[in-house]
Amino acid sequence: MKIGIVGLGLIGASLGLDLRQQGHEVYGVARRIDTCTTAVMQGMVDHAAIALDSLSPVEVVIVCTPIAAIAPTVAALAPHLQPQAVVTDVGSVKASVVAAATPHWPRFVGGHPMAGKSEAGLGAAEAGLFRQRAYVITPLETTPTDAVETVQALAQSLGSSLYTCSPADHDRAVAWISHLPVMVSGSLIQACLQEPDPTVRQLAAQFASSGFRDTSRVGGGNPELGVMMARYNQAEVLRSLHTYQTQLSQLQGLIEGEQWDALLALLAANQQARPQFL
Amino acid sequence: MKIGIVGLGLIGASLGLDLRQQGHEVYGVARRIDTCTTAVMQGMVDHAAIALDSLSPVEVVIVCTPIAAIAPTVAALAPHLQPQAVVTDVGSVKASVVAAATPHWPRFVGGHPMAGKSEAGLGAAEAGLFRQRAYVITPLETTPTDAVETVQALAQSLGSSLYTCSPADHDRAVAWISHLPVMVSGSLIQACLQEPDPTVRQLAAQFASSGFRDTSRVGGGNPELGVMMARYNQAEVLRSLHTYQTQLSQLQGLIEGEQWDALLALLAANQQARPQFL
Repeated sequence: MKIGIVGLGLIGASLGLDLRQQGHEVYGVARRIDTCTTAVMQGMVDHAAIALDSLSPVEVVIVCTPIAAIAPTVAALAPHLQPQAVVTDVGSVKASVVAAATPHWPRFVGGHPMAGKSEAGLGAAEAGLFRQRAYVITPLETTPTDAVETVQALAQSLGSSLYTCSPADHDRAVAWISHLPVMVSGSLIQACLQEPDPTVRQLAAQFASSGFRDTSRVGGGNPELGVMMARYNQAEVLRSLHTYQTQLSQLQGLIEGEQWDALLALLAANQQARPQFL
Repeated sequence: MKIGIVGLGLIGASLGLDLRQQGHEVYGVARRIDTCTTAVMQGMVDHAAIALDSLSPVEVVIVCTPIAAIAPTVAALAPHLQPQAVVTDVGSVKASVVAAATPHWPRFVGGHPMAGKSEAGLGAAEAGLFRQRAYVITPLETTPTDAVETVQALAQSLGSSLYTCSPADHDRAVAWISHLPVMVSGSLIQACLQEPDPTVRQLAAQFASSGFRDTSRVGGGNPELGVMMARYNQAEVLRSLHTYQTQLSQLQGLIEGEQWDALLALLAANQQARPQFL
């Protein structure tokens, strides 16, 4: 199959490596000419260009740009595509993206491969990045079945665990387990920085160990990504934050009221529930 | 040196392994006779008994019981000790413990080796557990200098990074980087469990990945330990929770007000600050 990839960052270039290995002919599009050159030289794509019209031969296009650029890219692509071409994306938020992109190309199928690493860019790309990771497909009721099946088959060929759900359900679910943790974890770092006594603040930094490291990890990650989550999944992020505040206040109330048995029951319930998310 | 260890759990038994390897003669005390037998057989102690009076020959006693039992143990030990004996503990909270234990034995020196693992008990003990980990000593102004130096030398002999500070500064610092993360992380699990739609809740569990795993880890840990932190460091835990709630509300306000530049600046500041805690 001829497959186009727009945006040769970590996700786009990693997809290129896997898809070429499967024997597909991969057409890359990047904004910078030296990214194109590197991608061809490193075997991530067969062909690369800056112009979207270079994708006129392909059957499938995977848009791997930042979220804000997905719908504009689909709009710009549309005039150059074959009528039966399928377009998908890899954005981590789906409702707003699918709603904005579909009018430009009805054979657009929202997708979200849930793989990543702390490094970004083409230089961090690796084969097998999507293996055994969730790959979520979020069609609308109006999305043509054959287009959905094309993207599902593609996700499965990467060795991913395939899930199909509505864009709204996707966004609500990732708010809980991906976006809320970033806000909760970031606020932990922020709170520690409020300690007014420099001696205590220095001791805190010196004593911090694996517990702080793990709890603060995603909060200390890429700030642009955090803003994207909040901006494009605003309603669900706020909804999850509201619930979180309520739960935290409840726990705070138990500590204030010295209700140690109730606190024990609460923490034990958390301990028992956590494995269902692992 | 003859060294006594009261409580042969993870910390006590691991200390025994290291101290024996250094050539000290280690006297263990445990509540159950089969713990005593196992500790001797596995080379964690030279002698073991159930009665505290078995520690009359020792120069140093390390109390490795749960927090609630530390001061009562020191009180019960006192009649059996040599006048120059030094008593220390390994409790993760210091102000309340040091205040309660010192009247029973003025040569009591508060200590907190910041090592641990998810498994508990003698079976999880290992040599070198304290190497390159913080070991905090928290003397009062009235604590005899030679007693403090004895415990400092002991901590250094384990290969730990030695810190000395007041019990109050210790408790405030660990509230930020150890106790607050447990409450913040536990409330994350709790919040996710509030999702009313079973389909979304199942998707959230299926999509959860390393971000959720890390952020929820300490919140899904030993519930008794969480209660101990809240109970014996209540004032500092509540103070840190109050600051945390304020910071989280501020972040929530930025998302509600769509102040994306301000949110970006906040998340970038967190990203920049985090390495000072690592």
